[in-house]
Amino acid sequence: MMDSTPLHRLLGFRVVSIDTRTGSFSMAAPTSGNAERSDGAGQAHGGAIATLIDSTATYACCIMQGKAVPTINLRVDYLRPAGGEEMVATAIVRRAGRTVSVVDVDVIAGGKLVAIGRADLATPAQENN
Amino acid sequence: MMDSTPLHRLLGFRVVSIDTRTGSFSMAAPTSGNAERSDGAGQAHGGAIATLIDSTATYACCIMQGKAVPTINLRVDYLRPAGGEEMVATAIVRRAGRTVSVVDVDVIAGGKLVAIGRADLATPAQENN
Amino acid sequence: MMDSTPLHRLLGFRVVSIDTRTGSFSMAAPTSGNAERSDGAGQAHGGAIATLIDSTATYACCIMQGKAVPTINLRVDYLRPAGGEEMVATAIVRRAGRTVSVVDVDVIAGGKLVAIGRADLATPAQENN
Amino acid sequence: MMDSTPLHRLLGFRVVSIDTRTGSFSMAAPTSGNAERSDGAGQAHGGAIATLIDSTATYACCIMQGKAVPTINLRVDYLRPAGGEEMVATAIVRRAGRTVSVVDVDVIAGGKLVAIGRADLATPAQENN
Repeated sequence: MMDSTPLHRLLGFRVVSIDTRTGSFSMAAPTSGNAERSDGAGQAHGGAIATLIDSTATYACCIMQGKAVPTINLRVDYLRPAGGEEMVATAIVRRAGRTVSVVDVDVIAGGKLVAIGRADLATPAQENN
Repeated sequence: MMDSTPLHRLLGFRVVSIDTRTGSFSMAAPTSGNAERSDGAGQAHGGAIATLIDSTATYACCIMQGKAVPTINLRVDYLRPAGGEEMVATAIVRRAGRTVSVVDVDVIAGGKLVAIGRADLATPAQENN
Repeated sequence: MMDSTPLHRLLGFRVVSIDTRTGSFSMAAPTSGNAERSDGAGQAHGGAIATLIDSTATYACCIMQGKAVPTINLRVDYLRPAGGEEMVATAIVRRAGRTVSVVDVDVIAGGKLVAIGRADLATPAQENN
Repeated sequence: MMDSTPLHRLLGFRVVSIDTRTGSFSMAAPTSGNAERSDGAGQAHGGAIATLIDSTATYACCIMQGKAVPTINLRVDYLRPAGGEEMVATAIVRRAGRTVSVVDVDVIAGGKLVAIGRADLATPAQENN
């Protein structure tokens, strides 16, 4: 699933850890190169951070639900510039509901908390056969 | 500013319209190619939509304030799959405050409203000299 | 429904207008008395504004769907102090979906836009008989 | 400060704990009486929960900053009906910035996580004399 998404390839997303027991899931990406705010800035663009949060939340939910879940909405708070070599997003499923799941994502870069995300994802309806 | 951001180039962002009087600003991007949810899906990835919303809100605010404004936070509601050829994001500055501005962004693709965004941006402090 | 909710009575909510065709719905409330930020402040508390937004969004959705809809989440941006005599919240249903509806609410007080809200509400599952 | 706000008195807010070292702060309120969704429902109204989250976040920030801080925006996710006798909101300051602070609030009722909130608050500008 990871490799079939152009943005994941372009931004160099890679899985760092999966914990199916706790519903925790981590992905990392470089803050420079295609993710940069502007050429040579050495800090990630807000859109690259939002994409990393959205994808990390989606995978965390997928792993718990066993299938693809569309994002209903996403909130990202940008706390500090995302510098350093790499940013790591860690998602925790706060609520796995029958129709809606809620996932929190912390993003750390250069040893600091640089952004926090919160996403609602739709739980696919049960098939009856 | 547009061309110096790798993600803008990769996602093919282009300015559609600027209205400095009303604070309205529009940008367009293809829904396919690098923006795709997955190769051949024909629908934009949530991260590409979030990036378009973030950048459109930022530019709308920049135009009114006359300088770069960092995004404090961003909310995106995904209403429908973003298909069709192109998505167009239109930002309206709802409040240009002394410390915080609030911008609403509607994204239309294939003739339908596919996502709505709301962003808070920091107004840079006044210099005293 | 209005009168059976203690907070609606305490905060003096009243319906201003209903337009079932467009999905627009308005409610008003005093900014003083029980709604005040602190005794004698003459400005509404953020919680009173959030309650007005939540209830206005819920009713707007109820009117379109024909039944009660629980709020999944709510975002409120506070733009200015809510002074004047009265605040009026107007909700517009942006998307009436099969599982989730999205409603925008503008709150005007003293002739100014003082807060804007956005809520996701769950559409009740269809009964099969 | 608590007692001078009509909604705090009507909803019975009371301080549960303060930890100035970690920036954690808790307040409790009954889920019934004036907070009820509707008379006799035995579950708190979303507006009462939002008010509790807003006030808990504000006080958590005040304690760290030493003065009143206005809420810029607030997001509340409602995870489950808030039943039981009492709801307890616990705020953690995630980022105490020079212009904006970000606070997370968890609300527990009847032994379950019933709502989560995230608020941005404005840090008052430094006086120069």
